[in-house]
Amino acid sequence: MQVIMLGVRGRRVFSALGRWENGVTAMAVVTAAPSSPCHISTSPPPCHFHTSARQSYKCELTSKRYAVQRGGFSQVCEADVKFFNDLLEPHRIVVGEAELAGHNTDWLGTVRGASSVLLKPKTTQEVSTILAYCSEHNLAVCPQGGNTGLVGGSVPVFDEVIVCTSLMNQVESVDTWSGVVTCQAGCVLEALDQHVAQFGLMIPLDLGAKGSCHIGGNVSTNAGGLRLLRYGNLHGSILGVEAVLASGEVMDCISAMKKDNTGYDLKHLFIGSEGTLGLVTKVAISCPPRPAAVNLAFLGLVTFEDVLNTYKAAKSQLGEILSSCEFIDRSSLECVETNLKLKAPIDEYPFYMLLETSGSNTSHDEEKLNNFLESTLGSGLVANGTVATEPSRMLSIWALRERIAEALIHEGYTYKYDISLPLPEFYKVVEDMRQHLGPSIIRCCGYGHIGDGNLHLNITSKEFEKEILNRIEPTVYEWTSRVNGSISAEHGVGFKKRNYIHYSKTAGAIKLMQQMKKLMDPKGILNPYKVLPDE
Amino acid sequence: MQVIMLGVRGRRVFSALGRWENGVTAMAVVTAAPSSPCHISTSPPPCHFHTSARQSYKCELTSKRYAVQRGGFSQVCEADVKFFNDLLEPHRIVVGEAELAGHNTDWLGTVRGASSVLLKPKTTQEVSTILAYCSEHNLAVCPQGGNTGLVGGSVPVFDEVIVCTSLMNQVESVDTWSGVVTCQAGCVLEALDQHVAQFGLMIPLDLGAKGSCHIGGNVSTNAGGLRLLRYGNLHGSILGVEAVLASGEVMDCISAMKKDNTGYDLKHLFIGSEGTLGLVTKVAISCPPRPAAVNLAFLGLVTFEDVLNTYKAAKSQLGEILSSCEFIDRSSLECVETNLKLKAPIDEYPFYMLLETSGSNTSHDEEKLNNFLESTLGSGLVANGTVATEPSRMLSIWALRERIAEALIHEGYTYKYDISLPLPEFYKVVEDMRQHLGPSIIRCCGYGHIGDGNLHLNITSKEFEKEILNRIEPTVYEWTSRVNGSISAEHGVGFKKRNYIHYSKTAGAIKLMQQMKKLMDPKGILNPYKVLPDE
Repeated sequence: MQVIMLGVRGRRVFSALGRWENGVTAMAVVTAAPSSPCHISTSPPPCHFHTSARQSYKCELTSKRYAVQRGGFSQVCEADVKFFNDLLEPHRIVVGEAELAGHNTDWLGTVRGASSVLLKPKTTQEVSTILAYCSEHNLAVCPQGGNTGLVGGSVPVFDEVIVCTSLMNQVESVDTWSGVVTCQAGCVLEALDQHVAQFGLMIPLDLGAKGSCHIGGNVSTNAGGLRLLRYGNLHGSILGVEAVLASGEVMDCISAMKKDNTGYDLKHLFIGSEGTLGLVTKVAISCPPRPAAVNLAFLGLVTFEDVLNTYKAAKSQLGEILSSCEFIDRSSLECVETNLKLKAPIDEYPFYMLLETSGSNTSHDEEKLNNFLESTLGSGLVANGTVATEPSRMLSIWALRERIAEALIHEGYTYKYDISLPLPEFYKVVEDMRQHLGPSIIRCCGYGHIGDGNLHLNITSKEFEKEILNRIEPTVYEWTSRVNGSISAEHGVGFKKRNYIHYSKTAGAIKLMQQMKKLMDPKGILNPYKVLPDE
Repeated sequence: MQVIMLGVRGRRVFSALGRWENGVTAMAVVTAAPSSPCHISTSPPPCHFHTSARQSYKCELTSKRYAVQRGGFSQVCEADVKFFNDLLEPHRIVVGEAELAGHNTDWLGTVRGASSVLLKPKTTQEVSTILAYCSEHNLAVCPQGGNTGLVGGSVPVFDEVIVCTSLMNQVESVDTWSGVVTCQAGCVLEALDQHVAQFGLMIPLDLGAKGSCHIGGNVSTNAGGLRLLRYGNLHGSILGVEAVLASGEVMDCISAMKKDNTGYDLKHLFIGSEGTLGLVTKVAISCPPRPAAVNLAFLGLVTFEDVLNTYKAAKSQLGEILSSCEFIDRSSLECVETNLKLKAPIDEYPFYMLLETSGSNTSHDEEKLNNFLESTLGSGLVANGTVATEPSRMLSIWALRERIAEALIHEGYTYKYDISLPLPEFYKVVEDMRQHLGPSIIRCCGYGHIGDGNLHLNITSKEFEKEILNRIEPTVYEWTSRVNGSISAEHGVGFKKRNYIHYSKTAGAIKLMQQMKKLMDPKGILNPYKVLPDE
């Protein structure tokens, strides 16, 4: 999941890295003693859109562009607003087209809903009251965290009531013995990571949107990111989830135990179901120790076969300290250099890799990394490379990878694909799609988490063109399905991909998903038009 | 999950370690080229019970001891047997009380069913045909892997048809780029681990029963084991599951991609649901690189506070190379020394710890471990310690931990509890229960995976006594619930704990589980009387 944030606040530009460009990484302000429940906020709060940027990307209504039929839900009426007003203070209810614009539109500027009201609960009980009311009155609901999603899952399609977790940002506890943090769903990922850093811990998830995405959204979308290779996915590291069902019933699966085999592990229903089975209100996360030593290598390679063999060598030689293994093709890097004026630390090569190590002993890690570089450069597997250990230099190198999504937007409309592929097929799809699309587009490039077999295939054109979309889809999904890949590795299905899910899932599996949805949300009010195709 | 195997084959005693006592670890025989689907078997096959041992543990029928009511299922009749005979060759159908004795009884000798027929399918299609038939004819089914479970989940309660995965032991593929192995459910864990070892990989799961447990059973019970601390749980490392539903429908969720966010992640329904939602037929596992260096330290400690602080120091100083952190109290070690005549490498201490490191660089790992031991011995945190790097010595030390379960059985009946607790409460429950039970028992001891907060609390008496059971239960569950622990960390719920699940799960969660069971197995034929309490 990448995100760009074009917001300008004061003199500091909030970058795609989720960090301030001058290299100051900590935005988290801890306002209470760490041992007691405390509120964490970002200061200044992340801003998703620069005003002018937002206007330039004001897109067609989703319902028109995609010709969706509205479900048989009620429309929000005066009595409903009165109920919400009785429940929440005025500043926790947002109404008005202008005020809601940023919440009705995704940050890519590619889908737009028309909600007339957004609610900001602070407690699980308030979420429960809201959902019970909406269920009773047949009102559809769109849960929203940091609204950094890339598949239209976090914005309404029509006039759904938006329930936003931004004020649910309390850290309940940090168990320093087991390394488990329990917190509300609205904690911003980076702020949470800074909070647990005080205890020598880290959140085992890192992604470009860390400065504004909410942990509840991360869990709901099973976000992957830059360090999944090392720390595994959220199904492994999330120990507990509390979620509110469509009926308003609170489903408490918030165990902070590392092992709990008592019955069906219901929390997995909420991890990755994108708010369609329940609204995540609280999570418990197993946090690994924060590494004492971090190193970053940026490599240039001549062939894709060299990329694969370098990854294999890194797995073997860097073993337990390898914490990230990223891939960038020349076209992606050129996009960042051209549109954002960033400069790579090495010359031009057809392919680049970014390898990060994290460990407990600086000299051991440096020795391992140096041995690895000596052998791969010596054998010619890697053509050129540089290593950074200084934080500011590492930030500059990470920006080359993390700001690609932002750089692409400068070219107009981005057709984004996030696919899993067997490694030998990993780059072929970029070459095939480039050839297939010819000169009708500006750019077709590939980058991503090669250590996890996860490619971000991106195509740009000056503006959205239905014809280009039709040339890309379903071709790219057919290609992916042919090699048994996944048409969504980490971004989820959301609104945009729900009609393509059959390329990765069997009819029987989709039917079971639909049955589960009916069981848990019989009226279908939770995040409708998302994840599952119409029956 | 521990298991003892009292089988004697030739001159070699097959130990609790799942290894031959003379130190030969490999039992796996690979009979086909690794790149093509191949059959892996154990040679000689693991034997669960020494004949005399089995007889001495022949226990009361479960239905009598626990006064269970049989469900309204049909009884297997001649026509059913004829159908199975038409489907499978004669050697794949087992009938007769003596032939079925080992499959009707758990290895602990604590529960016993009365099935009259066991089937050994080889393919998913055969499992599908069997389940479709049983569903149509209202026959209850008990899925069985290596029958190494500890909560009565893997044996029938009444006359369920046993469907055994022992002939489903094909490895389909090993993807050496991504490190993913795809195989049938009946592969024996140790044999599978030896198979992937050829490719420099390891199965991220290790437990005492490795020599006979099946990977399908491991997945169905979400087995934990000795290295969860390092490699995480199966919800993280299992990438794909194929399972057959009660209806006979094959649910194909067998993706071998590390990341796949297309819809609800159904495979998690089958991980840890103990065969009640589907019979697991195939799995895809993400395998980490096999470590080049392994070290094992055995430590003696004076207080439990020292144990906790040593664990904290190990996490910090051994960081990414710590692969196991186990705990043994004096009573547990004394049991192994007395009943199995094993000898600890250090003097008597109130507590012991076993720390394992696994890494890619021998000298780095040794340096880290030596520094750790110097500092903890120097400060007096650890009273005494020894380090083993030689395989045979490591095996002897591991036996002290892994053969405790076997040693306990020598004393008569074992009341086994497998609980998760917050670390500061970890050992109090042993002391409290010891005091509570007084002289009515032989032993009350504790050992387990302290790195995961998982205690194995064991109590022995000469033979099963209902009175003792009633003094232990529900007291131990109440104790656990009071500190928000889990009443089953890794063993599962099975038959024995289903009426205690409410100590760890809310009424709402249990109700949702029951609804899911009804959705996926409307007749309730799959592993009845297990996991969930009667409604």
